[in-house]
Amino acid sequence: MNVSDLGEDPLIQRITAGLPQQANVIVGPGDDCAVIERNHTHDSLLKTDCIVEHVHFLPDTEAERIGWKAVARVVSDFAAMGGLPESLLVTLVIPPETETSWVESLYSGMQCCAEFYGFSIVGGETSSTTSSSPAMISIAGTGLVEKGQAILRSTAQDGDQIFVTGKLGGSIQGKHLDFHPRIEQARWLAEHFRPSAMMDLSDGVAKDLPRLAQASKLGFQLDTAKLPCSDGSTTENALSDGEDFELLFTLSAEHAEHLATIWHQHYPDIPLTCVGYMTRDESQELHGGWDHFKPA
Amino acid sequence: MNVSDLGEDPLIQRITAGLPQQANVIVGPGDDCAVIERNHTHDSLLKTDCIVEHVHFLPDTEAERIGWKAVARVVSDFAAMGGLPESLLVTLVIPPETETSWVESLYSGMQCCAEFYGFSIVGGETSSTTSSSPAMISIAGTGLVEKGQAILRSTAQDGDQIFVTGKLGGSIQGKHLDFHPRIEQARWLAEHFRPSAMMDLSDGVAKDLPRLAQASKLGFQLDTAKLPCSDGSTTENALSDGEDFELLFTLSAEHAEHLATIWHQHYPDIPLTCVGYMTRDESQELHGGWDHFKPA
Repeated sequence: MNVSDLGEDPLIQRITAGLPQQANVIVGPGDDCAVIERNHTHDSLLKTDCIVEHVHFLPDTEAERIGWKAVARVVSDFAAMGGLPESLLVTLVIPPETETSWVESLYSGMQCCAEFYGFSIVGGETSSTTSSSPAMISIAGTGLVEKGQAILRSTAQDGDQIFVTGKLGGSIQGKHLDFHPRIEQARWLAEHFRPSAMMDLSDGVAKDLPRLAQASKLGFQLDTAKLPCSDGSTTENALSDGEDFELLFTLSAEHAEHLATIWHQHYPDIPLTCVGYMTRDESQELHGGWDHFKPA
Repeated sequence: MNVSDLGEDPLIQRITAGLPQQANVIVGPGDDCAVIERNHTHDSLLKTDCIVEHVHFLPDTEAERIGWKAVARVVSDFAAMGGLPESLLVTLVIPPETETSWVESLYSGMQCCAEFYGFSIVGGETSSTTSSSPAMISIAGTGLVEKGQAILRSTAQDGDQIFVTGKLGGSIQGKHLDFHPRIEQARWLAEHFRPSAMMDLSDGVAKDLPRLAQASKLGFQLDTAKLPCSDGSTTENALSDGEDFELLFTLSAEHAEHLATIWHQHYPDIPLTCVGYMTRDESQELHGGWDHFKPA
């Protein structure tokens, strides 16, 4: 059986199920970041991500935007844990005919994102691949979060309300290259409301909400009519397009009302929408979303 | 100009030269690992590395050995700093036709290396690439080292003796897949002799020794006749083949004699060879070694 028969999530479950974890590992595989003991005040967050030519960007995409995207995707995962990025390493795999100026522009875009969010690119690795093969950029990052305060996917509670920030769908029109990860909003949420569970939306609500529910051993009811759609996007786009890099989080009904009231005072330009609730019943079935090995 | 005109080291110098570093970064790009402030007793080590099908392994190489190699390469970089590995993340980029059993065997090899050296695979990322494109495995790792004790490439002193562990050359015969990184020996050296500079030999002495010398702003005199060659290998192999994953380090002449005496009591099966010395004069010119964008 090949990986496209199996699909992405079952593959990941299969390869990570048996991995033993040392005592310093607080959260291992399966969340937006791993969480590792660090010192008396903070835990470390670890994340790796990658983008591949023809899959995540095209040969004629501006290199600066590719660089921004590569780094911003990882920053979004730190946001999803309620943490902050700290240091990044870049792995670059390119065919020998790659233009040097392309690599320089790529780094310029990565550095631009690093500066914007106040962290450092501290090293990396460069390898050739065979001629005409797709370029690949992998970013590994460390972040930090206040001790014991990382917000996981797996801790949603029965009855919690489900929220999404921003508007969803149609990212391919350009947002997937230029988005700003919700670091500030996630930190604000963590400090003032402490969501019961949180993740970032990378593969579409239809793929990501079931992941959060499964990790929390709960079901969900999603009111698809409430999904906040980007201009020109349909509910189907909001469910399936992916690369929204918005926050998906859950909050007790008791706090949800208070949040809805004051969010808009703090972030008047960013929609916050309650789109459903967690339940002990079986999840409704959603179709769509991005699977790396079973593209729609 | 494309990257094969420029070459690997000049490319890396060009893209890392302008990267600003935050205050918590003790060592940024350019050494075997980055070094980051961690807590009162230890610093963190960060490293990323990758291997690419057709470049670092072949389609018919056993997947377990590929997995071991991918992880062991990173462990070797922690050894080179006098540190220990702690947590690893795996980025896997594979075409959709990849057999699931290949991925499982790959992970089995990676986990085998992780268990042997006592650390955890704490997460990762999986992405598709276009059909028939080379598979790529990138490993990002964190390690730790006693505070202020990381051994750098850039701190060799004029007159220091140059040592290599093990035998060099001919790694392609199999050692490049099955090697055991010199973690224990590097820790022993760090504790008892504190080499003035150290790195691991990944691209051949002809490539790596000039890197150490340049980082230390010194020249070197290498006695190529003294290079310890693997069975069936020539001096040329020892200089150029790469993927030896032995230690290259420098030590003051005063301590070098003492080391030579007691090394063999501790590691009777591992050769230790003095192959030259550091100098303020210009380095002798060496030819060969592995350049990713200018293959021999």
